[in-house]
Amino acid sequence: MSLAEALRTILTGPEQVSVNETVLEHHSKDVTSYHPGVTPDVVVFPTTTEEVSLVMQHADQNGIPVVPFGIGSSVEGQVVPIRGGISMDFTQMNSVLEVRAEDFLVRVQPGVTRLQLNQHLKEYGLFFPVDPGADATLGGMAATNASGTTAVRYGTMRDNVLGLTVVTADGSVITTGGLAAKSSAGYNLTGLFVGSEGTLGTFTELTLRVYGIPEYTLAARAVFPDVRSASQAAMGMMMCGVTLDRVELVDEHTVKVVNKFKGTEFTEAPTLFVEVSGNKAAVDHSFLLAQEILTEEGCLELEFDSDGAARTRMWTARHEAAFAFSASQPGKKLMTTDVCVPLSALPDAIVEARIAIDENGLDGAILGHVGDGNYHAVLVVDPENPEDMRRASHVNQEIVRFALERGGTCTGEHGIGLGKAKFLPAEHGAGAVQMMQAIKRLLDPKDILNPGKIFQ
Amino acid sequence: MSLAEALRTILTGPEQVSVNETVLEHHSKDVTSYHPGVTPDVVVFPTTTEEVSLVMQHADQNGIPVVPFGIGSSVEGQVVPIRGGISMDFTQMNSVLEVRAEDFLVRVQPGVTRLQLNQHLKEYGLFFPVDPGADATLGGMAATNASGTTAVRYGTMRDNVLGLTVVTADGSVITTGGLAAKSSAGYNLTGLFVGSEGTLGTFTELTLRVYGIPEYTLAARAVFPDVRSASQAAMGMMMCGVTLDRVELVDEHTVKVVNKFKGTEFTEAPTLFVEVSGNKAAVDHSFLLAQEILTEEGCLELEFDSDGAARTRMWTARHEAAFAFSASQPGKKLMTTDVCVPLSALPDAIVEARIAIDENGLDGAILGHVGDGNYHAVLVVDPENPEDMRRASHVNQEIVRFALERGGTCTGEHGIGLGKAKFLPAEHGAGAVQMMQAIKRLLDPKDILNPGKIFQ
Ligand SMILES: Cc1cc2nc3c(=O)[nH]c(=O)nc-3n(C[C@H](O)[C@H](O)[C@H](O)COP(=O)(O)OP(=O)(O)OC[C@H]3O[C@@H](n4cnc5c(N)ncnc54)[C@H](O)[C@@H]3O)c2cc1C
Ligand SMILES: Cc1cc2nc3c(=O)[nH]c(=O)nc-3n(C[C@H](O)[C@H](O)[C@H](O)COP(=O)(O)OP(=O)(O)OC[C@H]3O[C@@H](n4cnc5c(N)ncnc54)[C@H](O)[C@@H]3O)c2cc1C
Repeated sequence: MSLAEALRTILTGPEQVSVNETVLEHHSKDVTSYHPGVTPDVVVFPTTTEEVSLVMQHADQNGIPVVPFGIGSSVEGQVVPIRGGISMDFTQMNSVLEVRAEDFLVRVQPGVTRLQLNQHLKEYGLFFPVDPGADATLGGMAATNASGTTAVRYGTMRDNVLGLTVVTADGSVITTGGLAAKSSAGYNLTGLFVGSEGTLGTFTELTLRVYGIPEYTLAARAVFPDVRSASQAAMGMMMCGVTLDRVELVDEHTVKVVNKFKGTEFTEAPTLFVEVSGNKAAVDHSFLLAQEILTEEGCLELEFDSDGAARTRMWTARHEAAFAFSASQPGKKLMTTDVCVPLSALPDAIVEARIAIDENGLDGAILGHVGDGNYHAVLVVDPENPEDMRRASHVNQEIVRFALERGGTCTGEHGIGLGKAKFLPAEHGAGAVQMMQAIKRLLDPKDILNPGKIFQ
Repeated sequence: MSLAEALRTILTGPEQVSVNETVLEHHSKDVTSYHPGVTPDVVVFPTTTEEVSLVMQHADQNGIPVVPFGIGSSVEGQVVPIRGGISMDFTQMNSVLEVRAEDFLVRVQPGVTRLQLNQHLKEYGLFFPVDPGADATLGGMAATNASGTTAVRYGTMRDNVLGLTVVTADGSVITTGGLAAKSSAGYNLTGLFVGSEGTLGTFTELTLRVYGIPEYTLAARAVFPDVRSASQAAMGMMMCGVTLDRVELVDEHTVKVVNKFKGTEFTEAPTLFVEVSGNKAAVDHSFLLAQEILTEEGCLELEFDSDGAARTRMWTARHEAAFAFSASQPGKKLMTTDVCVPLSALPDAIVEARIAIDENGLDGAILGHVGDGNYHAVLVVDPENPEDMRRASHVNQEIVRFALERGGTCTGEHGIGLGKAKFLPAEHGAGAVQMMQAIKRLLDPKDILNPGKIFQ
């Protein structure tokens, strides 16, 4: 019996097991990155925890790799089934199971996407803040410990996942965490699974913190003469205790590409997008303070906006920056750096990154969640061109080296996948990496859960 | 060679190795709880990571238990060396190593206490928020995932420890985390060690998030006719999005004991202590909203205070509540429950707890960090009196049962230690507990790190 046939005895619904070429191709790689694809042997679409467990039992008994798949928006090759086997697509498990408005909690299946969840929460006056730009699944976001524009205020997935249902490598089902806002009851398994990139278990249910939609939100666009002054302004606002919901830096190049892609007419210079929310009195006071700092750092143009539609337009432009790059050069792919540095190192880090990109003759833009010290150099590369790849890898490496020398991390939010595995020992030291690998062997002794990822 | 003699060849400074009766006695138990003491064979006072490593190597080679010790303020028997061996006291490792004001970070040795740290940070306009009442060590606080009055705003230790230096069971030294505000680089070892109660490794250095001292702080004391209306008022403020720094409930009994112990004259009725900080405009606006809710819920007496000295007096009274209980009945000890429930279950939980205490004829008070859904019933017990102990254990169990049935936790902040180990399987299920135990065996194969704790 072939693998697909065997799986069809477990997943008996129509289209739950696919070997269709297009479906295999879709699950061979992520949407935007340079990582080359590898097709899985079969794609499964489970609909319940029990089905996931049965598939894992089969995989365990037969030593077959299983790669969980959300929407494939991750950028470090996380979803590539490099050893073949099963790609497990969670998009059929996409129900919001329970909204506990009074407890600021929601229970969801892993295939629910963040926009879908926020649509669902609106009528309760609630929202889920973690915002990685792409309309990713909550399961995928938990697995990469995603964050994005709002982490400066609301933290990362790790801060917002309170509990998980996890199917382990042998098909056992465990639950971690619970509904309490905090707990000191034993080891923090939830925090261990969040960020494990599908290598320790698959999530079939998540309990998430949600928040009240703020009474009032003010956004601003502040244009600067150069990236140094823009990033210093971001740092300055953080230092003065301005409570920012978002503070995003985009460089001149990014604004140009976005203008072209979206037909907008933003001034083509380094820009901070800032957002503050709360009660109106507090927001207005914060903005007065912010304005002072922005001006001090040489802001050339400052536009405020509390109108919902215009604000959405502005953030859509920011969010689609990466897609704009992809679209700007058909056939090309993206290599995206993702370091996060201590705040004081940020202005230098960004200036150095720009120099490295230019010196290496690459096409690339810089943008980032600068309130956290996290920024991306988005490098447009042709994966077929070895020279292109060599230069981009070199720039990536230089950016990581700079960050690690200052106590930073090689990935603030994208995860390790295939692309950053080479940096892990330099970041954590051999001892810590060996401990991580020992945990991997403990929880997945046959190495079937997303094998070949995170560790080299 | 005796154990002490062997250790003196490793720790050669004066008084670094002690078998003095008083010192052994001091390290046999915690300061306030009912858990009976067991004297260690020897107490060591290391001063460097290297010394800790050498002691651990010796312990590993000879299979000797090692129990890390901060100031022994934990309340679930965490520091009791139930299998003898070495009590490792960290109070000599008490230097603040580095303040990185621009990065909102500080590096400390584990024996630094929270008041010492805040004294040190004052001149930088910074503070460390986690506040467990007792002047605990940062190492001990990280090991129990402590929180306290400010968790509703600033989170728990897990949210505020960015990195650790850990000496493992065999004496290896690893570092986890780093200086970046967030990271998705591999498994979250920091989050695994935080809350591990000395059972997975000893911390010899911590990197902590710190915060700017708020511009303006307003505190209030709101008196209610009963605990239900007080806890509903707390819940109401959370629901309306009032950003509270602290919201503490104390019941009538607690106020009585505090008044007697501190000579204060607070109205002897259920009371909320509330604190809000930020810019003045925001605080004033929040307080208007808070006042409305407090009044709606039947607040009988409301006193505001933005004066530092009076505020400190008020919080000192709250903090010393537990000590007041201890002092109120010399010779008696405390059994403190510590459940945390989803917010909507809190008013019922507290009312039920009061009934259970009264029905069982116990002397006990209720107080808690009600913004998180976390509260304590502080039961005064005579550990020598089996009937007293039986009734207190029964009440503890009833309170935990109520919480677990609603998805809560048996311990919001105190940890498991000896006292809560029996509740762990009911809270997490057998599968998750087995996974925790497997991690324990992996990281401490000889079971020498604080053996006998967390798991039954
Ligand atoms: C334009 C663009 C902008 C982006 N911006 C950001 C950003 O600002 N911040 C940020 O953090 N990321 C960003 N990303 C990256 C990406 O959106 C995130 O990594 C996201 O978390 C991936 O979610 P996904 O549903 O696409 O997961 P996938 O890519 O499908 O999977 C990601 C990983 O999660 C695992 N996984 C998926 N589902 C499960 C499950 N149920 N159980 C266990 N493991 C699972 C997979 O095996 C894989 O290892 C961006 C990506 C793009 C394309
Ligand atoms: C009056 C009073 C009020 C309290 N209020 C609160 C509260 O509001 N919130 C709260 O969370 N707690 C509270 N507690 C409990 C207590 O203060 C906390 O548990 C605190 O974190 C213990 O710190 P410590 O330094 O006393 O550690 P200890 O009690 O000495 O040790 C606690 C645990 O940490 C381990 N440990 C200590 N140092 C290290 C190290 N360097 N490396 C590894 N492990 C180590 C020990 O082995 C032990 O398992 C209160 C206690 C009292 C007495």
